[in-house]
Amino acid sequence: MTVIYDRVALIGLGLIASSMFWAMKRAGAAGEVTGYARSAETRDTAREIGLCDRVCDSAREAAEGADLVILAVPVGAMATVIQDIAPVLKPGATVTDVGSVKRQVIEAVSPHLPEGVHFVPAHPLAGTEHSGPRAGFETLFDNRYCLLTPVEGTDAQATDRLFRLWQAIGANVETMDPDHHDLVLSVTSHTPHLIAYTMVGVADDLSRVTDSEVIKYSAAGFRDFTRIAASDPTMWRDVFLNNKDATLEILGRFTEELFALQRAIRTGDGDLLFDYFTRTREIRRGIIEAGQDTDAPDFGRVKPGS
Amino acid sequence: MTVIYDRVALIGLGLIASSMFWAMKRAGAAGEVTGYARSAETRDTAREIGLCDRVCDSAREAAEGADLVILAVPVGAMATVIQDIAPVLKPGATVTDVGSVKRQVIEAVSPHLPEGVHFVPAHPLAGTEHSGPRAGFETLFDNRYCLLTPVEGTDAQATDRLFRLWQAIGANVETMDPDHHDLVLSVTSHTPHLIAYTMVGVADDLSRVTDSEVIKYSAAGFRDFTRIAASDPTMWRDVFLNNKDATLEILGRFTEELFALQRAIRTGDGDLLFDYFTRTREIRRGIIEAGQDTDAPDFGRVKPGS
Repeated sequence: MTVIYDRVALIGLGLIASSMFWAMKRAGAAGEVTGYARSAETRDTAREIGLCDRVCDSAREAAEGADLVILAVPVGAMATVIQDIAPVLKPGATVTDVGSVKRQVIEAVSPHLPEGVHFVPAHPLAGTEHSGPRAGFETLFDNRYCLLTPVEGTDAQATDRLFRLWQAIGANVETMDPDHHDLVLSVTSHTPHLIAYTMVGVADDLSRVTDSEVIKYSAAGFRDFTRIAASDPTMWRDVFLNNKDATLEILGRFTEELFALQRAIRTGDGDLLFDYFTRTREIRRGIIEAGQDTDAPDFGRVKPGS
Repeated sequence: MTVIYDRVALIGLGLIASSMFWAMKRAGAAGEVTGYARSAETRDTAREIGLCDRVCDSAREAAEGADLVILAVPVGAMATVIQDIAPVLKPGATVTDVGSVKRQVIEAVSPHLPEGVHFVPAHPLAGTEHSGPRAGFETLFDNRYCLLTPVEGTDAQATDRLFRLWQAIGANVETMDPDHHDLVLSVTSHTPHLIAYTMVGVADDLSRVTDSEVIKYSAAGFRDFTRIAASDPTMWRDVFLNNKDATLEILGRFTEELFALQRAIRTGDGDLLFDYFTRTREIRRGIIEAGQDTDAPDFGRVKPGS
């Protein structure tokens, strides 16, 4: 139980910020934690459930005097927020973020940082399909990765201190180049989300199959897509608009592969399909061995008898 | 505890057949259950774990005298199996299957049925990413749908009896036209599987992102794709080859939608993305309300500390 930052400010009070609050309290890693959300309803909810030691009615009030300011807003809102709070940032303070895209966030935030304030970009690879201040829980980051993407000139001590905070709240912390981060995440997260959204949209559009059929018979694969496609629309809009190049590149590769498989189906090339499907099994094994999922069969997560 | 069939034969002893065995025993719905698998290793495993009352060394031996013969083999193997066992089928017996495609199975099986033997096609919408005789468990079908797809001329009493068996082992049973079944399943299962296989294949191929990165950072969406893409390669090869038309149709619709979203990303049309992602959330709500998934957040299904 070592306090790593005396004063922490959470700007934005959604799933990630609220989970960070509960996890920091569990670890005793932060002194006073202030919080701000743009919506009055969210601020009221936060006060009601005890989220943050002090909920402020402006981002400036929350950020003032903080040793660590965490920007937990959609990627597209980062520039506005940093411009708003810049005048009150304490010399020597660290600003960080939790955005799913790193290069664009660095470009949005860096120009507005006052002299003597450090910016250490971060991205916790954790989340659920739920959003909002009530969605957080203290174990969200346990055994999950958090990637820090410092750039040339990022203060080493500030990076190290944030590294220790993420460790304290349960994460496996690593550092990575921001552009490489954006490419890797495009593969493991952004493009899969776009594909899931697309497939769910196709199902919804298809007049020959009713929505109720799609819903009733979803268990056979589609259900997982709908869970992914239930994630926060604002957050994901901003991810795609701000990681455009990597997403378009991976989508291009995806379409190329999909057309090859489509051609194999059309021509009846069973060997190609069999070999392809055998190869993809291996990756699954690696994920289980790496502890990022369990081998337990997922047979629907339905409460029997419900 | 009503015995619905005195003698049941399971041809094929994978995930579905073994789950049916345990579920029939739980329900007391079957008298003696015989079983056969092509691989000697699978038959040995079945004997070792008590799967089936009697494991036979040929499909004919298992099928002989059975009141219900369940073809639980990949879709592409149905024709071979029915030709093999046809001579020993008991008059008045029912043959059924558990294949994920219905029209092609009907066309493969029907011509080989002896006079007086009924064929009632069936498809339980249940499964996990595991396969083989050890993968089965008695609750697999609880609260899951099983679709019967009788055609014109299918014996009504035979259909009704199979209906009652599936109810007895936990399923919600419905009947559906086979062609409509193939279209609906193409949307809810076949195309999502192909897409998941494709995305996992892209990740594996991308030399600028290492496999270990893909595996470590899989939690953010990709993990669910790898689970789907770990399913049995033979079964899925056969599904795509035998539900070619519907799969190609849905893939065409999918590509069209994907290109529309891709264009929105390229042109920066955030409103289109936001509206699309908002609409797909609704489908998710429907699935939870229909009891086909829970609202519990999926934060990785990782054992903390593992």
